[in-house]
Amino acid sequence: MFKGLSAFPLTPITSAGIDRQGFIKILERLTAAEVDSVGILGSTGSYAYLTREQRKHVAAVAKQHTGDIPMMICVGAISTEQVLYLAEDAQQLGASALLLPPLSYQRLNDDEVFCLFETVTQRASVPVCVYDNPGTTHFMFSDELHGHIAALRGVKSIKIPGVPSQPEAALARVRNLRGKIPHDVTIGISGDDSAATGLNAGCEVWYSVCGGLFPEVAKEITQAAAAKDSQKVMECSARLEPLWALFRKHGGSIRVIAAAAGIIGLTNTDCLPRPLLPLSADNIAEIAGVLKQLALN
Amino acid sequence: MFKGLSAFPLTPITSAGIDRQGFIKILERLTAAEVDSVGILGSTGSYAYLTREQRKHVAAVAKQHTGDIPMMICVGAISTEQVLYLAEDAQQLGASALLLPPLSYQRLNDDEVFCLFETVTQRASVPVCVYDNPGTTHFMFSDELHGHIAALRGVKSIKIPGVPSQPEAALARVRNLRGKIPHDVTIGISGDDSAATGLNAGCEVWYSVCGGLFPEVAKEITQAAAAKDSQKVMECSARLEPLWALFRKHGGSIRVIAAAAGIIGLTNTDCLPRPLLPLSADNIAEIAGVLKQLALN
Repeated sequence: MFKGLSAFPLTPITSAGIDRQGFIKILERLTAAEVDSVGILGSTGSYAYLTREQRKHVAAVAKQHTGDIPMMICVGAISTEQVLYLAEDAQQLGASALLLPPLSYQRLNDDEVFCLFETVTQRASVPVCVYDNPGTTHFMFSDELHGHIAALRGVKSIKIPGVPSQPEAALARVRNLRGKIPHDVTIGISGDDSAATGLNAGCEVWYSVCGGLFPEVAKEITQAAAAKDSQKVMECSARLEPLWALFRKHGGSIRVIAAAAGIIGLTNTDCLPRPLLPLSADNIAEIAGVLKQLALN
Repeated sequence: MFKGLSAFPLTPITSAGIDRQGFIKILERLTAAEVDSVGILGSTGSYAYLTREQRKHVAAVAKQHTGDIPMMICVGAISTEQVLYLAEDAQQLGASALLLPPLSYQRLNDDEVFCLFETVTQRASVPVCVYDNPGTTHFMFSDELHGHIAALRGVKSIKIPGVPSQPEAALARVRNLRGKIPHDVTIGISGDDSAATGLNAGCEVWYSVCGGLFPEVAKEITQAAAAKDSQKVMECSARLEPLWALFRKHGGSIRVIAAAAGIIGLTNTDCLPRPLLPLSADNIAEIAGVLKQLALN
């Protein structure tokens, strides 16, 4: 399941709680587009803001509305004890895989992160994807540590942050990591604006925020990558540059995607869990303009 | 209550869960030393690793064993909804004040942090202390933002991270902040190795990890500060330099204090919540040597 387009949908959360109807509308777009897998309760899915009970509810709704599409669920939490409970819940609710970030409060060292993955993989009955996202976890993986963790039974993919924009540098980055990990562990790119570069550098999967709301345009890119048409990959991504620019402008994708889900009528434009605030009316108008220009709806 | 020595005890957590007996032994030291206040479930109290129910349990035990000593409870959580529940719990369990860090997953902006404090102070019936700790929250306060937040009704203290080691620079740092906040809001120093410099620069309170386990030596420092004996403040802190050096060596105080609580027989030396791991036997032996040298027991 760790290949092609893995779509990471928003979990819309309004002042009334999780917007179940809005979430279902988002999921139905992913099912209709036949994405290769879904990544439920990822960073854009606001896992870190939800209780265990809320996360069970979101996973159950997702399973009900994505049918046979393989479902990965993020089980990140600051304490290992909570991660284990969340992993149990996710498996009982039909997760095909677990996504595990080394979420931290006190700064973690390599031994601590290795032990976390060892503990979880020993107990899990489904594959685990390593979630490397220093922007939110504040933990920096070395490729050596990736190698140790990827050798654990059950680890099947690594979700890496953006690669360098220069193709040669991106190729070197992916090749270096590949040299440290077993051949059956795939590398997945995230950071949507470097997805094309990452896929052309040999990443087998795109863990995609864009694909969580606009799966058709994202799938065009992963399909071109599967066909080894690197030029088309770059062209399709270049067309979406105004969207990537919005992600950069707002310090990440979540506030933009939340606004976009509102603009296209799936949920409220204010659908982020507090303390996160919706963008200003001016910014939402600018996003609406970009969506129109790109024919994203 | 926001003056003098505020002792922040460890919450010992072993493989069997919260070590209630060990925690009580730690609390009894603080009561015997008559510290000015206790800070329960701070960073060293591992609030971020515990569930709402576990946090209620810890607060209840603390209240039972610290009697009339003013009790501040940290109510930090990634979601505002959880912070509000935790604040309600803390107040019901007898908290005299709430300590609130802007814990983050997605990077927060100033408006979001201001709204968090506004929301919590509007609902809280006890004073709030702003917890400024960029090392764990990954949020950087400007003095301007501190000023806006400190003007909110209910905010009565700011817990700041370490100050510059040069006395003049520390004085300027505290003076700049003081110029932005109401006169009835105190400034408290944390980062034990810069406590002496902070107190001499005008901080009214030491939010102290050392004081959470070794209250007598910490109280000597805050009492010297209250008597304006800046030379004695520096001398007492200089004597503890080997302890500060251990904190720096191990990337913060929590792993050292957990080991120390074990060495002096209050709990297991392995008393940190996973994924945090206890220090190695060699490191624990070194810490035992320092405690002996400093007559800390």
